[in-house]
Amino acid sequence: MIVTIVQMNSTIGDFEGNARRISELAAKAAAAGETSAGASGSAAPGRPDFVVFPEMALCGYPPMDLLDQDAFVDGNLSALRRLQKELPPDLAVGVGYVDRNRSGSGRSLVNAYSVIAGGKVVFTQEKTLLPTYDVFDEARYFEPAKARKVFTPPSGRIGFAICEDFWWEAPPSPSFKYPLDPVKELLDSDIDMLIVPSASPFVSGKLKTRLGLARKTAREGHIPVLYCNAVGANDSLVFDGRSFAVSPEGETVAMCGWDEALLTIDAATLAASTISANAVTDAGAGAGDDSESHNAMDAAAAGPGAAGEAAIEEIHQALVVGIRDYLRKSGFSAACLGLSGGIDSAIVAALAAEALGSANVTCIAMPSRFSSGGSIDDSVELCRRGNLRLERLSIEAPFTAYLNLLAAPFAGRPFNLAEENLQARIRGALLMAWSNKFDSLLLTTGNKSEIAAGYCTLYGDMCGALAPIGDLFKTEVYALARHLNALAAAAGKPEPIPLPIIEKAPSAELRLGQKDQDSLPEYDLLDAILRRYIEDNASLSEIVAEGFDREVVKKVLGLTARAEYKRRQAAPVIKVSKRAFGVGRRLPLARRCHETDL
Amino acid sequence: MIVTIVQMNSTIGDFEGNARRISELAAKAAAAGETSAGASGSAAPGRPDFVVFPEMALCGYPPMDLLDQDAFVDGNLSALRRLQKELPPDLAVGVGYVDRNRSGSGRSLVNAYSVIAGGKVVFTQEKTLLPTYDVFDEARYFEPAKARKVFTPPSGRIGFAICEDFWWEAPPSPSFKYPLDPVKELLDSDIDMLIVPSASPFVSGKLKTRLGLARKTAREGHIPVLYCNAVGANDSLVFDGRSFAVSPEGETVAMCGWDEALLTIDAATLAASTISANAVTDAGAGAGDDSESHNAMDAAAAGPGAAGEAAIEEIHQALVVGIRDYLRKSGFSAACLGLSGGIDSAIVAALAAEALGSANVTCIAMPSRFSSGGSIDDSVELCRRGNLRLERLSIEAPFTAYLNLLAAPFAGRPFNLAEENLQARIRGALLMAWSNKFDSLLLTTGNKSEIAAGYCTLYGDMCGALAPIGDLFKTEVYALARHLNALAAAAGKPEPIPLPIIEKAPSAELRLGQKDQDSLPEYDLLDAILRRYIEDNASLSEIVAEGFDREVVKKVLGLTARAEYKRRQAAPVIKVSKRAFGVGRRLPLARRCHETDL
Repeated sequence: MIVTIVQMNSTIGDFEGNARRISELAAKAAAAGETSAGASGSAAPGRPDFVVFPEMALCGYPPMDLLDQDAFVDGNLSALRRLQKELPPDLAVGVGYVDRNRSGSGRSLVNAYSVIAGGKVVFTQEKTLLPTYDVFDEARYFEPAKARKVFTPPSGRIGFAICEDFWWEAPPSPSFKYPLDPVKELLDSDIDMLIVPSASPFVSGKLKTRLGLARKTAREGHIPVLYCNAVGANDSLVFDGRSFAVSPEGETVAMCGWDEALLTIDAATLAASTISANAVTDAGAGAGDDSESHNAMDAAAAGPGAAGEAAIEEIHQALVVGIRDYLRKSGFSAACLGLSGGIDSAIVAALAAEALGSANVTCIAMPSRFSSGGSIDDSVELCRRGNLRLERLSIEAPFTAYLNLLAAPFAGRPFNLAEENLQARIRGALLMAWSNKFDSLLLTTGNKSEIAAGYCTLYGDMCGALAPIGDLFKTEVYALARHLNALAAAAGKPEPIPLPIIEKAPSAELRLGQKDQDSLPEYDLLDAILRRYIEDNASLSEIVAEGFDREVVKKVLGLTARAEYKRRQAAPVIKVSKRAFGVGRRLPLARRCHETDL
Repeated sequence: MIVTIVQMNSTIGDFEGNARRISELAAKAAAAGETSAGASGSAAPGRPDFVVFPEMALCGYPPMDLLDQDAFVDGNLSALRRLQKELPPDLAVGVGYVDRNRSGSGRSLVNAYSVIAGGKVVFTQEKTLLPTYDVFDEARYFEPAKARKVFTPPSGRIGFAICEDFWWEAPPSPSFKYPLDPVKELLDSDIDMLIVPSASPFVSGKLKTRLGLARKTAREGHIPVLYCNAVGANDSLVFDGRSFAVSPEGETVAMCGWDEALLTIDAATLAASTISANAVTDAGAGAGDDSESHNAMDAAAAGPGAAGEAAIEEIHQALVVGIRDYLRKSGFSAACLGLSGGIDSAIVAALAAEALGSANVTCIAMPSRFSSGGSIDDSVELCRRGNLRLERLSIEAPFTAYLNLLAAPFAGRPFNLAEENLQARIRGALLMAWSNKFDSLLLTTGNKSEIAAGYCTLYGDMCGALAPIGDLFKTEVYALARHLNALAAAAGKPEPIPLPIIEKAPSAELRLGQKDQDSLPEYDLLDAILRRYIEDNASLSEIVAEGFDREVVKKVLGLTARAEYKRRQAAPVIKVSKRAFGVGRRLPLARRCHETDL
């Protein structure tokens, strides 16, 4: 049996576009296989019997409450019927979509995966384990599958574990146990191959877990396991692709990269080939040996957390994909951002340039009476190196106008947070004016440490449509800066981030001589506490028991709890950690903090 | 059997405060009953055998992802143990809280309801039907109950249907059917009384559904049904209390109002009394005849939607409770808002004054070159009538400063949305400066029609911590204005909303002669389409089939879809409809609109 995994980049709600792409890529898979088979002496597999697409490839993932609209479900079902007419009748094609629950009990919908062959749906498996944690809300919409079934074409017995169905061994929390294990049921049903159609978002280190589960399953069942992931980004989520095939012995035979790609494997010989979905010829077809695949497999060695160059590189990849797809799927080609002279905005500028091309990125420096001379010099140097457009707009005149206007009602009150925030809000208004005037999407440059502690101004520096580094702690931002410089140096190019930007003490420059560490603990300390609190849900007393000073921990937890109202109105962040701010972390605003008593 | 229902206003995470209040109110229930029983000739019931509190009264509802923190669950369990020591040992008390799931399978937690008597937990029922739609996420945290149990004190057999457990007959959508009916199981178990501890948020017209379910159940089982709801607000949700008792014949015997209150009923005689939780004496005790109860029972006659004075009055009540509790639970006593001279800000000013006292509300008028003379005059008159502080800050100077600053980069481009939004953003920055300087919470004044169509400026007029009328369509805002004036006139007081504010054509006044209807369909038409689209999830073709012009419908749906990114960063709105913007409506941003092809 020869199977092609297609990792596809769907757009939510674009039924026509997604169906067209499925047809194109199915045809490409067939054609590539025929060419390979014809080449004498080639180790590449021949024409596939079966082409598989990711979970919900037809409608895009996650459609969220669009699923409440009958018109959305109908649109996706119409596209499924069109596909039945358009796909080559002699090819079996597996496609994920949303279907109605026709069982008469439970939720209205099911997360369905069907095989189309000969113009008909010949097999359907619904998803059993419905992730309802973090960013996932599947129990909100779907009824779980009642049974696990085996697809039985003449060439073999195939089981499907749809994304979470594969994760029984790695539940969202140690105290949570799914009531049944779909993979075990399928292995007990004597399958010859397990296919895992997924829409699994990137989390640092998660690839290792996926591979571990696949290897264990492959060895247990003595069968190949094919993991077919979605690729591309939707809002906060980056689907990292990196689809792979594991042999019955638990060896990773081939792996795709971060772009649309096809991976073909012959289950008998384990010959495998990967090609880019955009390759116009089949020149790229071969024995799964392109460099992209190797990078992805290197990254798999990295565990969770930010340690190691491979881990930082996969975060780098995720952020570039996340920026690129958010703009493309929102209909924008250009971005703008405020450049402060600090590390955060410098990194976002570099990432945006990589994602969109430097010609499509405008940086705006907005100095005030409190800006250091170095801030402007460093911004100029950053833009020179990156070939980025730099605009300069001093905020002094509007700031003075506001201060004069407020002089009477604020008379006798000292310069404080009100005036500090005002400067950030003038910058936000200028950036939004730029965005409105030039149809340029504004990127906000906050990092996870400051968004956690509330060291940021709502409607000020928090203005923006997307927060590319909002899930990176400050210490990770530094690591990424050094990594980008090292990548450039290794390629003989100029380092994108000037050293003074990395080495200066961080400052918001909203009053004279202000430094971040006047208000916050040192970032090493802050980030260590925040990581335990936000990502692990550790308690105050647990964190203190690990050796941190109680007063410091209490301060950090209190700052984080009090800033919840800012995060409720924050831009979506690109998720790279197991717990990012945004849709995956839902907290009430008006409450008493049970730990800090605030 | 004599039972007291206590509708309590819990604060999320305030375990000590909530437990203290439970003790106080349980003692009050016992004391009030003793007094009543002693009064010769009184029809009021005697000392209760059993005092019941709402669902999750101990931890507050909804705790959302605080439930992922072990420290939160532990804090609530410690409070439960303290209650066991502190409650009078001769009184049975029913309390809702969160417990760990000890069954070894499924989610980590359960939504629990226990009876404490004699210093011990003597009975526990977990919740069976876990609402996971709209604003609810219970399947994210809880494992459903395996069985329905009967509490059997000597005085009778009591069943508990915890909130959604009572709603089998009224599922969230017609195509959704819960797999079992907990109430039917309890009726089949021969109970003498059904108690429904709830944390059921206000939705216009929902009281009628609650009463209908209770009456039907009471008649079917020939038993009294006691509905014990939470009261007070948390963020977007207003718990409207209005707890009630229904006789075995299906008659509503007594009903509480919108404040903390105790309702005692003798199951044998159906004698009932309600008292305010804040009454210092028992003077208020009697045969359930206070005017507040009558208002609540009048409102119950109102169906869903905004028709009728009773329906508008319950929305009015909900908004006042929502504003008051959001400020109190967030630690604020004062509010500020921008006053444009239009109907939206006028209504928010009047509601804020009612909720907080007029001395605690500051209105800020911020005229520009485009403001009409009438706008300021009307604002002055509104504040005169309401005894509200009015500040005047012209935005001309900062606006000019911005325009000068942007003259060079914007050269040759016409005045457009960029400059219009800039004015709204100057106002937002001034209001936030005020909020920061005077510790005054900013209310944003947008209505549901403009938030839907995106006829609002992100980081401009959308600035604010809470959107009191963000779930009212413009036509409902007008109805509420007329209602407030009618209430005042009936009480012989000056009408709060000056007539010119109600009668003028709505305008954002961001360019010369601008009117809302230059950009939007007439509000009657717009609101009718939006209601079908947003609240009923009707499709374009369904709405067109109802007689609306296809191009108009397409425009409205397109505007709504394109504005999703603004709503993602919007302030929480106070929910009054079945589908409000915010946590109960979750949509992707980067997507293709399958209906308008945008």
